[in-house]
Amino acid sequence: MPFSILPGAFPRSRWFKLLGVNAETIAVGTELLTPFRQDTNSLFLTSKLNELGISVDFKTVVGDRRADLVNALQVALARADIVIFMGGLGPTEDDLTREAVAEAMHVELTRSPELVTRLEEMFAARKMKMAENNLRQADVIAGAEVLLNSRGSAPGQFLYVVMEGKSKAIVLLPGPPHELFAMFEGQCIERLRKIAPQRHIAVRVLKIAMVPESHADKRAAAIYTHHADVETTILAGTPGEVQLHLRAQAESLEEARNRVDTLTSLLEDEFEDTVFSAQGESLEQIVGYYLQMRGATLAVAESCTGGLLAERLTSVPGSSRYFLGGAVVYHNALKTMLAGVPPLMIQEHGAVSREVAAALAEGIRDRCKSTIGVGITGIAGPGGGSEEKPVGLVFHAVADDSSTEVVERQYPGDRDRIRNWAAQQALDMIRRKLM
Amino acid sequence: MPFSILPGAFPRSRWFKLLGVNAETIAVGTELLTPFRQDTNSLFLTSKLNELGISVDFKTVVGDRRADLVNALQVALARADIVIFMGGLGPTEDDLTREAVAEAMHVELTRSPELVTRLEEMFAARKMKMAENNLRQADVIAGAEVLLNSRGSAPGQFLYVVMEGKSKAIVLLPGPPHELFAMFEGQCIERLRKIAPQRHIAVRVLKIAMVPESHADKRAAAIYTHHADVETTILAGTPGEVQLHLRAQAESLEEARNRVDTLTSLLEDEFEDTVFSAQGESLEQIVGYYLQMRGATLAVAESCTGGLLAERLTSVPGSSRYFLGGAVVYHNALKTMLAGVPPLMIQEHGAVSREVAAALAEGIRDRCKSTIGVGITGIAGPGGGSEEKPVGLVFHAVADDSSTEVVERQYPGDRDRIRNWAAQQALDMIRRKLM
Repeated sequence: MPFSILPGAFPRSRWFKLLGVNAETIAVGTELLTPFRQDTNSLFLTSKLNELGISVDFKTVVGDRRADLVNALQVALARADIVIFMGGLGPTEDDLTREAVAEAMHVELTRSPELVTRLEEMFAARKMKMAENNLRQADVIAGAEVLLNSRGSAPGQFLYVVMEGKSKAIVLLPGPPHELFAMFEGQCIERLRKIAPQRHIAVRVLKIAMVPESHADKRAAAIYTHHADVETTILAGTPGEVQLHLRAQAESLEEARNRVDTLTSLLEDEFEDTVFSAQGESLEQIVGYYLQMRGATLAVAESCTGGLLAERLTSVPGSSRYFLGGAVVYHNALKTMLAGVPPLMIQEHGAVSREVAAALAEGIRDRCKSTIGVGITGIAGPGGGSEEKPVGLVFHAVADDSSTEVVERQYPGDRDRIRNWAAQQALDMIRRKLM
Repeated sequence: MPFSILPGAFPRSRWFKLLGVNAETIAVGTELLTPFRQDTNSLFLTSKLNELGISVDFKTVVGDRRADLVNALQVALARADIVIFMGGLGPTEDDLTREAVAEAMHVELTRSPELVTRLEEMFAARKMKMAENNLRQADVIAGAEVLLNSRGSAPGQFLYVVMEGKSKAIVLLPGPPHELFAMFEGQCIERLRKIAPQRHIAVRVLKIAMVPESHADKRAAAIYTHHADVETTILAGTPGEVQLHLRAQAESLEEARNRVDTLTSLLEDEFEDTVFSAQGESLEQIVGYYLQMRGATLAVAESCTGGLLAERLTSVPGSSRYFLGGAVVYHNALKTMLAGVPPLMIQEHGAVSREVAAALAEGIRDRCKSTIGVGITGIAGPGGGSEEKPVGLVFHAVADDSSTEVVERQYPGDRDRIRNWAAQQALDMIRRKLM
């Protein structure tokens, strides 16, 4: 393949000849070819590249074999404008990205005295002896710009090349996510912005609670298919949550925003109060906002969700301002002991019943002296179901000083999905109570 | 590229000429090139292919564009013996895998009358009208064997080809995981076994609790590097868990097992009682086994973990046999109300203290009448830390009828990691108490 490496960035006009700029990511590491590990860095890079108006058209994963790396680069250069390697820049013999890129481009690797000094200083500062093989990290591909690593020892590299008259870029980034993120944001975005098409992008994420995915899909599609100027992706989140990701590109930011906002309004009209967030917040965050806004507090008594609802609520930093705590009442005796459910009620109606759910919500509210109390009881399975009360049956109750609302649901799926459905439904009931 | 398609499977000897058989997976779908979705089917396929002695050397993701699909196949055939497409077999205009493979191989697509009948019957059985475009799913690549789909409408296809004297296979599978899994297990494994090297494989997963990853790495490497006949992968699980995946291939199963077991013994000697599982069980499962074995029950009082420990314990089916429940005591008043911690103790030592952790464990044990009680209190952050009690400080207590043990730890990382560290440590303390 006829390559030529440019000494620095080439004139912008050259890039403008391209109709749309596309990228290929290459994740490097034999461990990424096992059943246990996955390339996730490319998700971050895709999001950042898309913001620059660059599409990712291919993603490749390749092991720590030099010949395979050379092959992957040759293949990528033939079909993408920007090729980004992730990984293989460390000091070990398995780290071969530098060598492979130099080989594929038919150029030399040269040890940089500045990088050697930097590595020596880094090791000295940590009072560690530097093993000889660390010096490999100071090897620079002829013509490449060095990307310093603020969070690790392996520098990245950035090459501008021309191939068959087309301007291309090859970027070498380290594999550890925190190193890659910092290096890409700090040193690659500006370089890529210069060579990316000038586009502005507006984004919105609408989240919808407790609307079945297939319904949401159909109702949303009826609207967004008439708005081809906004890219719409429907994703299923945790059970009971559907996300609509909207994204528009335009020559001005105002135009991009207009497009996204127009579609957002139409979707909000369609989905009404099932839309709980238009800025990406989680349902537990939204519930937290509402509780703080109302100066209200919350306590929960969970049976079948076994702590999942409390765990989600407390995953939000600062949740101690409105979440007091509660009880996990797996055993029936604890329903009485910790939440004051009368034993006779359990005997009469069963632990999984409308009555016990209400008593849990009222009891935990009373004992914890919270504004709102929540009770959940159900059958998560796989055992414990009966014809009358099958696996997946859950009662959810939300109590405040004026009333107690109980909702009965029959959820599909396995133990994990049923528990997640139930926690989501309870959060949505709290949200509606506070709305 | 010079291809020739064989009418059926070719003689086995042809495959044996290959020294090791390798595969490339190609995930198809523009949604897999967004920041929101990932190819996970390849993890399943890798595990199954490895069991057949076939390595996965490249993984590619490509969008729903015919030219890109043709390119991906040409690239893959040049570097892999087995090429597996995942997705793009549905009825819509975006489903182009069939057309692309036919184009790349320079052969015809022919509509199969049998498949047309099958599709018509399938729609009739569901009392649905079949749209014309569904018939595209009846198009078969010349020379391909049809793989019927037991869980959906899109059949798969299996092609044997010879390229530059080498025998290769191209497999087209549907994208939805449950369809792909069933089709691969039911119809591909036997076909691939015939052309894969005859190898037997033995596998072990050792799980280790609360040994820092870098230590575990170093200590394990000192041993496994002398056993190159066993492939060893070290993975970090949830914080506080390191997994060692061992895998040996040999001509007999006995030989493969011997190799894995020899290394397992050495690693168990090195890591002693920090190894909690050698069969892949989770720590909460192991704790459950021990509790049942001892006829013991458990109750927990959680502050900073906010329900996470209870959630992990109750994620195990049947956990109601030994887990009674407990309290999430986020607010200090609840530490007193639900777990009986004296208010004066909280005032004197602070809510995050050795004393309060012990009182939580003893108090919840007493109230729930469980054999073992657990208390956790700490600072998960990001706020709430002080010089004396920084973010990451956690006290864990485990009480039984004879004693209460308290462990103090200072964890690194963010809120989520600190909470996970703490839950893992508490589970490990319960395990050790029961051992």
